[in-house]
Amino acid sequence: MRMFDIIAHKRDGRALTDEEIDYFVEGYVNGDIPDYQASALCMAIYLRGMDPREVAHLTMAMAASGDMLDLSDLPGITVDKHSTGGVGDKTTLVIAPIVASCGVTMAKMSGRGLGHTGGTLDKLESIPGLSVTLGSHRFKEVVRECGCAVVGQSGNLVPADKKLYALRDVTATIGSVPLIASSVMSKKIAAGPQCILLDVKCGSGAFMKDEQSALELAEAMVSIGERAGRKTVALISDMDRPLGMHVGNALEVMEACDVLKGKAAEDVTEVCIELAANLLHMAGKGSLPACRELAREQIANGRAFAQLERMVAAQGGDAACLSDYARFPQPEVSREVFATQSGWVGSMDTEQVGVASLMLGAGREKIEDAIDPSAGIVLACKTGDRVEPGTLLATLYSSSEERLDQGERVLRGAYHIADEQPPAVPHFLARVSASGVEHMA
Amino acid sequence: MRMFDIIAHKRDGRALTDEEIDYFVEGYVNGDIPDYQASALCMAIYLRGMDPREVAHLTMAMAASGDMLDLSDLPGITVDKHSTGGVGDKTTLVIAPIVASCGVTMAKMSGRGLGHTGGTLDKLESIPGLSVTLGSHRFKEVVRECGCAVVGQSGNLVPADKKLYALRDVTATIGSVPLIASSVMSKKIAAGPQCILLDVKCGSGAFMKDEQSALELAEAMVSIGERAGRKTVALISDMDRPLGMHVGNALEVMEACDVLKGKAAEDVTEVCIELAANLLHMAGKGSLPACRELAREQIANGRAFAQLERMVAAQGGDAACLSDYARFPQPEVSREVFATQSGWVGSMDTEQVGVASLMLGAGREKIEDAIDPSAGIVLACKTGDRVEPGTLLATLYSSSEERLDQGERVLRGAYHIADEQPPAVPHFLARVSASGVEHMA
Repeated sequence: MRMFDIIAHKRDGRALTDEEIDYFVEGYVNGDIPDYQASALCMAIYLRGMDPREVAHLTMAMAASGDMLDLSDLPGITVDKHSTGGVGDKTTLVIAPIVASCGVTMAKMSGRGLGHTGGTLDKLESIPGLSVTLGSHRFKEVVRECGCAVVGQSGNLVPADKKLYALRDVTATIGSVPLIASSVMSKKIAAGPQCILLDVKCGSGAFMKDEQSALELAEAMVSIGERAGRKTVALISDMDRPLGMHVGNALEVMEACDVLKGKAAEDVTEVCIELAANLLHMAGKGSLPACRELAREQIANGRAFAQLERMVAAQGGDAACLSDYARFPQPEVSREVFATQSGWVGSMDTEQVGVASLMLGAGREKIEDAIDPSAGIVLACKTGDRVEPGTLLATLYSSSEERLDQGERVLRGAYHIADEQPPAVPHFLARVSASGVEHMA
Repeated sequence: MRMFDIIAHKRDGRALTDEEIDYFVEGYVNGDIPDYQASALCMAIYLRGMDPREVAHLTMAMAASGDMLDLSDLPGITVDKHSTGGVGDKTTLVIAPIVASCGVTMAKMSGRGLGHTGGTLDKLESIPGLSVTLGSHRFKEVVRECGCAVVGQSGNLVPADKKLYALRDVTATIGSVPLIASSVMSKKIAAGPQCILLDVKCGSGAFMKDEQSALELAEAMVSIGERAGRKTVALISDMDRPLGMHVGNALEVMEACDVLKGKAAEDVTEVCIELAANLLHMAGKGSLPACRELAREQIANGRAFAQLERMVAAQGGDAACLSDYARFPQPEVSREVFATQSGWVGSMDTEQVGVASLMLGAGREKIEDAIDPSAGIVLACKTGDRVEPGTLLATLYSSSEERLDQGERVLRGAYHIADEQPPAVPHFLARVSASGVEHMA
């Protein structure tokens, strides 16, 4: 077998055989196949596509390229959730404690933020003392104690994806459904859960700019998960506004706590309930409506919040933070940003809200940049709200006036003021499972 | 400007700007752009194509990436000929002396054989003493003395093509019309002639397997040449059989001499007349029919052969070889191959004839392989000939019985014996010039 022929087959629109896919993944990971051949193949896949059998096999070959976690020694059904990247998305911090409080196990490997999107690890690390590098033994101990834990990717999980993603990132081959789907699902499958919930975002702040392409990606990922023997559901969610009112690291942990205390805005609370309910439903805890009710109860009775406190403490963090927000790192400076005209917030450029947060110091442009845990944005107005000159739009937190200037400039550009109130749009647009697509909007 | 965006533009089917093409070619040659980005772009070009303006600009950018030869100090109109690679193609050795004998200058840089196709330099080097590395000063001196010379590519001609071709060769991106056309034409344009004749072969022994794709390539190259201010004509020729009866190195020089002495087979003689006539016509020596007549005369009156003798001597070769073939290197062993059934030679797999010659030692599989100047094949039967059991098909020349076994096995597979005589097919199928396509078949 020759890599040359594999490239030529895909170039000519042929489906690759399982053996060809294995040859490519193994050869690329062990260095026998050079980057310049891999990038030619990625471009051919980008332009020619892959059928469901090819994508599923590519995913399994990538998952098998490194360690495959075995979670079978953990109690309960194991679940995992993946979001395709968003702005202000703190849902993991809410739903992991909710499902854990119902006896469903969430041993989650999470990521860091890059560019305009945040990362759960960065958010958690804003809690003084908390560690996201536990080692696999301690990781499982924490999961056994608390029903959940959130750590960084360990040593050698899916090396094929690490290498291939870095190459795709510089060869304009990121935005291909087969390549995105296999990248995401290889990591989920290698992480070992029995059930996988995918939150596929679409809109201005997301990879997928419209519902149709988000649906296509969701269907590809559900097909892969089911072929791999994992119960898989994908929700398509609207990212035409940030999720909740807080964007940043410590700020988002605070809002997650507010949700678990029943004190947060309705939109972010409802999104977390829906995600948790889907995980509980997959784990056999009843019908979807019953699981929604169960999730609400775990918030109302305080069990989910107590579960988060236990997890934070077990990971070495100062759990008292979660009730006394003054214990979080505090920003040097802040600024209130007011509206200058009257009208309605007609739409928001979510990506630009993420960029504003990045400018304030809450994110990183390059992988090696340090982040400011206290920096970020508390929104006062979102899409659909009425504004007049002098209405508070948002409060910015940062380490310098210069950063506040940059953040304010970008954030102002993210608000589009309209003459009429825009129609309300539901957060979830569709639910994709093995039984098909169910439109929710 | 970023290479990432250039790849993305072509990936999305957009035409690249002149500035983007320049940025790519300069950056790739000077090493700023890595192979993995260049190969992704080549695959995007392969699958998305390029418009005539893009291809012409890519060609000029490649031509300008190294030395551009200036032939303006040579006497007469300067012409060049390029063939897209064939089996048994010794036409350069015939037409250079013919046009030189009419006062038209052919300062030719030629190539070496690789795989199943032969190279003019290898053929010339079978003449004892002859050098194809003259240095640019001596090269021009020989051209001034003899009206023609044939040498290898000098130092830094079109480095962009050298680097890009090597990359395309291992990334399955050779067979793209814009990339083939720019590769061929950048070298022709950098070599400096006023008129360019292209011999685009199609059929089993050629890059282009059918007339339609050969026409497409021919039109692309003529368009590039005319945009670059060079008079350009392309002939589409049939490669469904080898050209002439000899395949090899010394063997092909002998057949070229036979043509110039008026003693060769009609097919190869007529092809050489047509090519020479087109060059003479472009150089202003009269109408095409008049130029055909002129070319025939230069053979009949011996002037063309004398011109070849002068060129060989000026390049340090033993010109007496050309009249006394025993002075060429002689093969160790030979073998006659006879037909085993009766019928007609219905078709020949030209590529396999080239592979048989390679097996006998006349070619090289890898660039660093040495070749045997005496090895090769003298065909006795070609497409359309009647055979009976015992009819001589060909005589093979090589350095060992083992090689003869290999060569015989492959050559036998190249003959397809049919029950009926196949219809005669003309050698030239079409002529493409600035004024359009003229079908000749």
